[in-house]
Amino acid sequence: MKHGQLASKELAEFVRERAAIEETYSKSMNKLAKIASNGSTLGTFAPMWDVFRVSSDKLALCHLELMRKLNDLIRDINKYGDEQVKIHRKTKEEMVGTVEVVQALQVQTGHLQKSKEGYHAKCLELDRLRKDGAPQKELEKAELKSKKAAESFALCIEKYNRVGGEFEQKMSESAQRFQEIEEAHLRQIKQLIKGYSHSIEDTHVQVGQVHEEFKQNVENIGIDNLIQKFAEQKGTGKDRPALVGFEEYITVLAPEGGKKSRAKAFRIPGLVWTQANIFLLHLLT
Amino acid sequence: MKHGQLASKELAEFVRERAAIEETYSKSMNKLAKIASNGSTLGTFAPMWDVFRVSSDKLALCHLELMRKLNDLIRDINKYGDEQVKIHRKTKEEMVGTVEVVQALQVQTGHLQKSKEGYHAKCLELDRLRKDGAPQKELEKAELKSKKAAESFALCIEKYNRVGGEFEQKMSESAQRFQEIEEAHLRQIKQLIKGYSHSIEDTHVQVGQVHEEFKQNVENIGIDNLIQKFAEQKGTGKDRPALVGFEEYITVLAPEGGKKSRAKAFRIPGLVWTQANIFLLHLLT
Repeated sequence: MKHGQLASKELAEFVRERAAIEETYSKSMNKLAKIASNGSTLGTFAPMWDVFRVSSDKLALCHLELMRKLNDLIRDINKYGDEQVKIHRKTKEEMVGTVEVVQALQVQTGHLQKSKEGYHAKCLELDRLRKDGAPQKELEKAELKSKKAAESFALCIEKYNRVGGEFEQKMSESAQRFQEIEEAHLRQIKQLIKGYSHSIEDTHVQVGQVHEEFKQNVENIGIDNLIQKFAEQKGTGKDRPALVGFEEYITVLAPEGGKKSRAKAFRIPGLVWTQANIFLLHLLT
Repeated sequence: MKHGQLASKELAEFVRERAAIEETYSKSMNKLAKIASNGSTLGTFAPMWDVFRVSSDKLALCHLELMRKLNDLIRDINKYGDEQVKIHRKTKEEMVGTVEVVQALQVQTGHLQKSKEGYHAKCLELDRLRKDGAPQKELEKAELKSKKAAESFALCIEKYNRVGGEFEQKMSESAQRFQEIEEAHLRQIKQLIKGYSHSIEDTHVQVGQVHEEFKQNVENIGIDNLIQKFAEQKGTGKDRPALVGFEEYITVLAPEGGKKSRAKAFRIPGLVWTQANIFLLHLLT
């Protein structure tokens, strides 16, 4: 049972490490999003950085979410660990009888051994006296001792077998009980592992969606589109520079008098470049 | 074009950061595998740690592989960056004519302005003389000056329009050329992004397989199976303890003489416990 408690502890430790890994990954993805958002806003490629930024931000969220789920799971594992301790304590109390019978059997095993040795010694002594032709009185005394030792030995055997029977019964019951506890433990642990598995699977699906979105976004931003956007932002206009014509200077003195005509302002057309000229600016700057 | 070079540089930087993130993740997964391999080997749960270890090791490999692919991609991006520099240098050389015509137009714009102002001033002067009733000789002189200024202005306009035409032509050609370069650049960059996308997608599929395997392995290890394995490893046997019977001490003196029988060794059966009794050991230790 102690191993069961260790298993819960170790599983919690494993999940905690995984949660920490996911947290680090999430933070790194935030950093990556920052790199994307710091991408130059000047070239034709600029709008793509937004796709990278959004994708990295979403990945960061996916892994942060996984971290949160794993932290919830750790709480569940710890809760189960506490329950385990209670169950084990209760079981130990219930098993006091089994412990007693095991100790009793150990004691009886010692008695049996001693009793056997005593009986053996008395029989040997009797044998020796007979061989040496000892006096009848001594022989009778030795026979009595040997008989008593045999009776004591027989009693010991009986007691040993009785305790042995109890031992077998208690052991069988306890083994059954422990097997049930072990099975319940493994069922619980497997349930927790399933939770772990589900969380990781969910995140995997989400990450797949984020990536699919990224791919789609990259594909959707066409090259023509990027150039068009860039030209709209950076272009100086669509008109071509007009030709300059000669304009007469108109006198302020009205020859017919009265009506005063003003000198028309002479204007050089601004350099209104074509939409594409912005590319030239890159060359010149 | 400079922005194009910046885009390649920034993309390489982004991919480098991602590669670093994947490397860190891979190393963390190796560490996680180590935690799994350090899991207790004693309880019924022990065989599960191997499933965790294998899965974490495989995840580490997936992300290491992604890091390698991204490093290859960085090499490709840098190679393209070098090509870009060459193309841009060559284009700049080809565009010298355009730069010249832009500068010529700037010069002509200045001349045109000055020439207009000169013509204006001469006309004003002529007007003033006429108003003041200046002598005929002075008027003729002023008229000549005004006429010359008009001719010079007309020449300037002609030259400006000629240079303006050249400017439009060169600008149009250059813009076309730059647009082609920009398009080629974006095509290339998009190709590189596709490489990035593919690598990440491959890894995502692999990670999915590793996880599927993990799930399958967890499911395949049944609870009965774990208990059976544990009992086989830790159990002390399947036999039950036998009953002890009384055995007579057999004398070494053969009453009929000759044949010598040896005292049969008296054996207490070892405590051969049932398979399940190992659970009890947990309680007692």
